[in-house]
Amino acid sequence: MSGNKVLVVNSGSSSLKFQLFNVAKGISAVARGVIDQIGDTSTSTLRVTAGQDGVSLAGADEQTTKEPVTDHKQALNLATDFLRQLEWARNLQQDLVGCGHRVVHGRDFPCAALVDDAIRKLIKEGAAMAPLHNPANLLGIDAASKVYPGTPQVAVFDTAFHQTMTPGTYTYALPQDICSKHGIRKYGAHGTSYRYLVQESSRMLEKPANKLNLILCHIGAGASLCAVENGKSVDTTMGLTPLEGLVMASRCGDVDPAAVLYLLQHVCGGDVQEADKLLNKQSGLIGLTGHQDLKRVLDDAAAGNLQAVTAAEVYVGRIQKYVGAYMMKLKGKVDAIVVAGGAGEASFDLRQRLFSDMQRFGLKLDEVKNKSMKRGEAACVSTEDSSIALWVIPTDEELSIARQTLEVIHEE
Amino acid sequence: MSGNKVLVVNSGSSSLKFQLFNVAKGISAVARGVIDQIGDTSTSTLRVTAGQDGVSLAGADEQTTKEPVTDHKQALNLATDFLRQLEWARNLQQDLVGCGHRVVHGRDFPCAALVDDAIRKLIKEGAAMAPLHNPANLLGIDAASKVYPGTPQVAVFDTAFHQTMTPGTYTYALPQDICSKHGIRKYGAHGTSYRYLVQESSRMLEKPANKLNLILCHIGAGASLCAVENGKSVDTTMGLTPLEGLVMASRCGDVDPAAVLYLLQHVCGGDVQEADKLLNKQSGLIGLTGHQDLKRVLDDAAAGNLQAVTAAEVYVGRIQKYVGAYMMKLKGKVDAIVVAGGAGEASFDLRQRLFSDMQRFGLKLDEVKNKSMKRGEAACVSTEDSSIALWVIPTDEELSIARQTLEVIHEE
Repeated sequence: MSGNKVLVVNSGSSSLKFQLFNVAKGISAVARGVIDQIGDTSTSTLRVTAGQDGVSLAGADEQTTKEPVTDHKQALNLATDFLRQLEWARNLQQDLVGCGHRVVHGRDFPCAALVDDAIRKLIKEGAAMAPLHNPANLLGIDAASKVYPGTPQVAVFDTAFHQTMTPGTYTYALPQDICSKHGIRKYGAHGTSYRYLVQESSRMLEKPANKLNLILCHIGAGASLCAVENGKSVDTTMGLTPLEGLVMASRCGDVDPAAVLYLLQHVCGGDVQEADKLLNKQSGLIGLTGHQDLKRVLDDAAAGNLQAVTAAEVYVGRIQKYVGAYMMKLKGKVDAIVVAGGAGEASFDLRQRLFSDMQRFGLKLDEVKNKSMKRGEAACVSTEDSSIALWVIPTDEELSIARQTLEVIHEE
Repeated sequence: MSGNKVLVVNSGSSSLKFQLFNVAKGISAVARGVIDQIGDTSTSTLRVTAGQDGVSLAGADEQTTKEPVTDHKQALNLATDFLRQLEWARNLQQDLVGCGHRVVHGRDFPCAALVDDAIRKLIKEGAAMAPLHNPANLLGIDAASKVYPGTPQVAVFDTAFHQTMTPGTYTYALPQDICSKHGIRKYGAHGTSYRYLVQESSRMLEKPANKLNLILCHIGAGASLCAVENGKSVDTTMGLTPLEGLVMASRCGDVDPAAVLYLLQHVCGGDVQEADKLLNKQSGLIGLTGHQDLKRVLDDAAAGNLQAVTAAEVYVGRIQKYVGAYMMKLKGKVDAIVVAGGAGEASFDLRQRLFSDMQRFGLKLDEVKNKSMKRGEAACVSTEDSSIALWVIPTDEELSIARQTLEVIHEE
């Protein structure tokens, strides 16, 4: 391995996020950026934050460029050209040992993998279950393959971490011939975040990962929970797609399956795309309140706004439902509950609402620690005598992808 | 109130079950029966078990008659004629103080009610959410109104018991304008059974019902759980319809809402009725194993059949998920878990699988009591030192309907 950089790409349908890591000694981020509104040439924006020394983000300020950007390849070229102006990034192309790509749906593939024809096929098949994500992820892979020809491209699947679930957990009570034929089962998502959180929990709790029982809560715009036994996923709230489970910013999470058919028939005029949009884009906090700002929901609820009170109860109650379910799944043997993700890390109010009433389950929230903890740092926010520890751990999906990318390249 | 009998009717689309109670002193069943395959004139069968003394089921043997029966009115006439042959039932018409009817979906109506035009309208509206049940329930009401003109007809709704759930519990994270307009929310079912189980639990545990926190498990062909706080329903697994929640004989229970759209599009050719049939009739244990015999599933699983092992894990795991969720909902303050319903009452194996590993939650199953308890009798099957009691209580929905019918009549 001659180079010393790994580029992580998280490609959406009209955006491309990237993060560049120096992997010479450990792994550290040296630049990150995003190109928004690709295809909308009048308004595409490149925002980059790059360190000055090439080994850290030291001296980094965000810089913004507006350029017409028609596709993902052009977006990645633009980012590359921008970086190459920096002394340490002049030979970026040669320095790259690999590109790691976030891919949402990898069906039953159990790990990250070098992109070849079979993996491309897998990603395309996964698009049936992640129609918004997988095709966009493939755009990013295609762009990187062209901009960095010869550099190994690695697909890191959000589903892979959950492949340790047993059939008794991932099987739906649907006709099994149909499920086999179509690959209908629980797959889960956020696996890259969960893998990272298990590693960090092991470090924080000073216990080997393969001895850890955890309930991991990734609470962002997308949100899910994961039950971890001996370091491995044994259950998660997302299902065939990232729609099942928790209430999210715009996704409904669990509803009566019959409600889906009712909405389709009586509200969406039989249009499946319309129903999909309703459940994925117009539901969740948006459906409950008209907006997706959780902080505002919780503030409004505290101020007595009835709609917000209900929304907060639905949102918080759904998470608590699964915390209870996963305590049961782990037979009560839980080392820690770990909260991560945008809202999970930012909102002491959310954590207060979630965990202040779990004493009988052995979890005692330390309200002072919870309120005073510093954003961006890992912190234990339970009391000394809490039998289950409560941790807030900033997740880092890009770092996790970089790590997994290196692992795949080293295995080759 | 001159009479001393209450007739309870549970009317399906092609069957009519009834039970006759003597209400002179307490309430006791004196006859019960069922007419099957109504409308299929070649094979309709009336089966009646009637006591000889008119105050109990003493001396009762089942008697069978085959007759061509074209509709529910004729079915009820046939049953009435049969009963009138008995000495104590000669004046059945005059003796009846009321007929109580099971109605599955009563939307947000909070109690049982005398059937009038408004209640008929309510039942018809509820048919949108219980298309198999409500129209059939109405057939039974119409039949009884004709066969016993002038006798009060009382509708007893399976949903009513759950009207104590708060908006934070019954609200789905779907667009609220649509939900309001269409009445889309969690309603639950099995309320008649749950009401009875709360009363019986109060008796067994010697604690006032309004002080009881319970997790009630009604596990039959249809199955649900209910969290009870201070005697009132605070959550239940069934939702807008009786499809949500647990794995049932032929119903899928919880699945990713996106899986419903996937099946509709890729398996059912866009046909909503077909998808509804798939989820309600071809899923659950049938979908998992090809048959709906839970005992056989558990026996096959014990014998190592892999498909049965998975089916048993899915079935049992779903119930345990909600036991954990409801322990959390009740903040760990649970007096007892109560198991009822066909499979719940019959299968010590099911209870063993469900509850043998909950010591850390304060529940200790007594395996000997569990195995040796007598079917049809209430029994505590937890150990003396279990902090949460585990009870098996035979449910009696007909008796519950009779009680509620009397209450409604006495209030008039």
